[in-house]
Amino acid sequence: MKFSINRSSFLKTFGDVSRAISSKTTIPVLTGLKMVATTAGLTLTGSDADISIEAMIPEDSEDNTLTVEEPGAIILPARFFGEIVKRLPEDNMTVAIGENLQATITSGASEFTINGLDAATYPQLPEISSDRSLKLNADIFHQIIGQTVIAVSTQESRPILTGVHISIQNGTLVAVATDSHRLAQRSIDLEGVNTDADFIIPGRSLTELGRMLTDDVAEVELRIADNQVLFTIGQTAFYSRLLDGNYPDTTRLIPTTSNTRIEFSAPALLAAINRASLLSHEGRNNVVRLNIEVGAGRATLFGNSPEIGNVEEQLSFNKLEGDDLEISFNPDYMKVALQGLGQSTIEVAFTAPLRPFTLVPSEDKEHYIQLITPVRTF
Amino acid sequence: MKFSINRSSFLKTFGDVSRAISSKTTIPVLTGLKMVATTAGLTLTGSDADISIEAMIPEDSEDNTLTVEEPGAIILPARFFGEIVKRLPEDNMTVAIGENLQATITSGASEFTINGLDAATYPQLPEISSDRSLKLNADIFHQIIGQTVIAVSTQESRPILTGVHISIQNGTLVAVATDSHRLAQRSIDLEGVNTDADFIIPGRSLTELGRMLTDDVAEVELRIADNQVLFTIGQTAFYSRLLDGNYPDTTRLIPTTSNTRIEFSAPALLAAINRASLLSHEGRNNVVRLNIEVGAGRATLFGNSPEIGNVEEQLSFNKLEGDDLEISFNPDYMKVALQGLGQSTIEVAFTAPLRPFTLVPSEDKEHYIQLITPVRTF
Repeated sequence: MKFSINRSSFLKTFGDVSRAISSKTTIPVLTGLKMVATTAGLTLTGSDADISIEAMIPEDSEDNTLTVEEPGAIILPARFFGEIVKRLPEDNMTVAIGENLQATITSGASEFTINGLDAATYPQLPEISSDRSLKLNADIFHQIIGQTVIAVSTQESRPILTGVHISIQNGTLVAVATDSHRLAQRSIDLEGVNTDADFIIPGRSLTELGRMLTDDVAEVELRIADNQVLFTIGQTAFYSRLLDGNYPDTTRLIPTTSNTRIEFSAPALLAAINRASLLSHEGRNNVVRLNIEVGAGRATLFGNSPEIGNVEEQLSFNKLEGDDLEISFNPDYMKVALQGLGQSTIEVAFTAPLRPFTLVPSEDKEHYIQLITPVRTF
Repeated sequence: MKFSINRSSFLKTFGDVSRAISSKTTIPVLTGLKMVATTAGLTLTGSDADISIEAMIPEDSEDNTLTVEEPGAIILPARFFGEIVKRLPEDNMTVAIGENLQATITSGASEFTINGLDAATYPQLPEISSDRSLKLNADIFHQIIGQTVIAVSTQESRPILTGVHISIQNGTLVAVATDSHRLAQRSIDLEGVNTDADFIIPGRSLTELGRMLTDDVAEVELRIADNQVLFTIGQTAFYSRLLDGNYPDTTRLIPTTSNTRIEFSAPALLAAINRASLLSHEGRNNVVRLNIEVGAGRATLFGNSPEIGNVEEQLSFNKLEGDDLEISFNPDYMKVALQGLGQSTIEVAFTAPLRPFTLVPSEDKEHYIQLITPVRTF
């Protein structure tokens, strides 16, 4: 195998593929980057067994200046090879495989020789047929990921909750995540999609996928198999395993009525929560308290730490209606929920001090809802 | 005590003073920020017992909008108070001390109450007379710090080597640091300075001081006492303890003759060293090898790791003279030395494979020298 390539275009594709490569894996071959050079181009593959990414740099593209002199395949230590490529002196580099799987990397007056592994020892990627496939707008899918993945569980005690449940039925996609303390649910209407699907994908897979959905990506193709899903973004294939099991029925968790409703600017409420949590973080319970007096037209947020002190803040709001209320909650859940709501105006709706409350964007209450379970403080 | 102030001008001065405040101190009062409000202004003090910084915000300055309503003094938990000030909602804040040393911090609709400590319990800063004082150009002093502090020892086994030895005699300042593996020495001629001095200042003190010597600082005043030194920068006083003991005589370490001399561009050599160290870092010894063949006009750098591979690079140089040489050294010492030499052209001079070699800027060989001890590899 021998090829020459412009370093920066190599590094861009290598950057995508490395998202799947972990140095912590227990399978030594997976710390490597697999490279296959053919007359069509250069294919890079990385995998951590949960996620696999395969990206192709075509030989005929103008901006990558790839020249394959001799087809072949090799596995090189990924982290190390990346460090070398980053530091080479010239814009271009040549990679050649010699005897004993030794790779020689040359650029200017610098020549590295590193030991590779036989490409045949690399695990095969799953084959996923195109029976169940659909196309999604990349922007919207990126949004859905960002708005739901924030609520997945990070604890392995209930593995199913570390995933996002995505169901596509009758042209509507619903994505939901919960760690049993809070929940985020986003839905969209898909135009011209007739494929139904129901799967649970690890939150980490979606997070990594989201990072690849940059502004220049227009569309993502999705193909679903029994225990694998494949997202195709241009020349890049992103495989993720799916979680096995039944996702809890979350529809009955979302309250349909409320007794107190208040409308805030999301960033202003976030700033107040950040201040109050300065003190709650120092206390043992990490809880802030919200007091709503409808008659007086007053909403007050309290944070307290017995050792250090306390904070009290009158919150500004747009609208307030319903019953008086005093409720306590974990400010960190609220922060994450508000970050998911961005710059919008939001409605927070409460039923009772110990019942979950909801946050929805005022302008579109149907398609995005977040739910937070309060904390009992007495 | 009660004062109002613009938050960003408070935070700027607080940022300077916090350099001296460590959360790891074993003396609880030193985790605090001392504030003293008088009719003249607001004085902030921080200290970690090694370094103390005192800065004054005058009441009459236009840009800080300080108003002292009631003089007084308090100690507040520094890290925590800083976090609060950063997150307050309005541009201005008011700090008032009430009963039981409780401080109330208000800004807009937000009100924090935190517990303070009696300012009288804060350690007194040393009094340093103006007998032995001199003024230094801030730019040049900043340079001297950056060029020498890189060679101080980070190990406490020989505490004296954690400092920089500064001696001022007959109008010449010489600063030298060594950790016994490498050495950096910088000298300057001071105009109009008649004060002599000789002291060893902790490297960490100089590093922190250097960070305060920003572009807008023109001059530093230096006052020396027996075991303390005071640097005055505008309205800010920076105190450091001095190290006690005799600094080793370093003059005899610097070779006066050489057998091989080679001239490099410092940044180009640094890039090559960075590449070679990629492999040496993976090996057990962290050593790179330089081979100089004067007849062939060739200088080659080698890095090697038995597990991963090796690198070989032909170095470009401007001039080469003297004897052939093969020498091995720690690339990290070389990196740090080259960073100290910046963008300049440098001369590296060798005596023998096991003797220290020197690096000097080609354009001024007299005032800055770095020395590195090679590594025996056979």
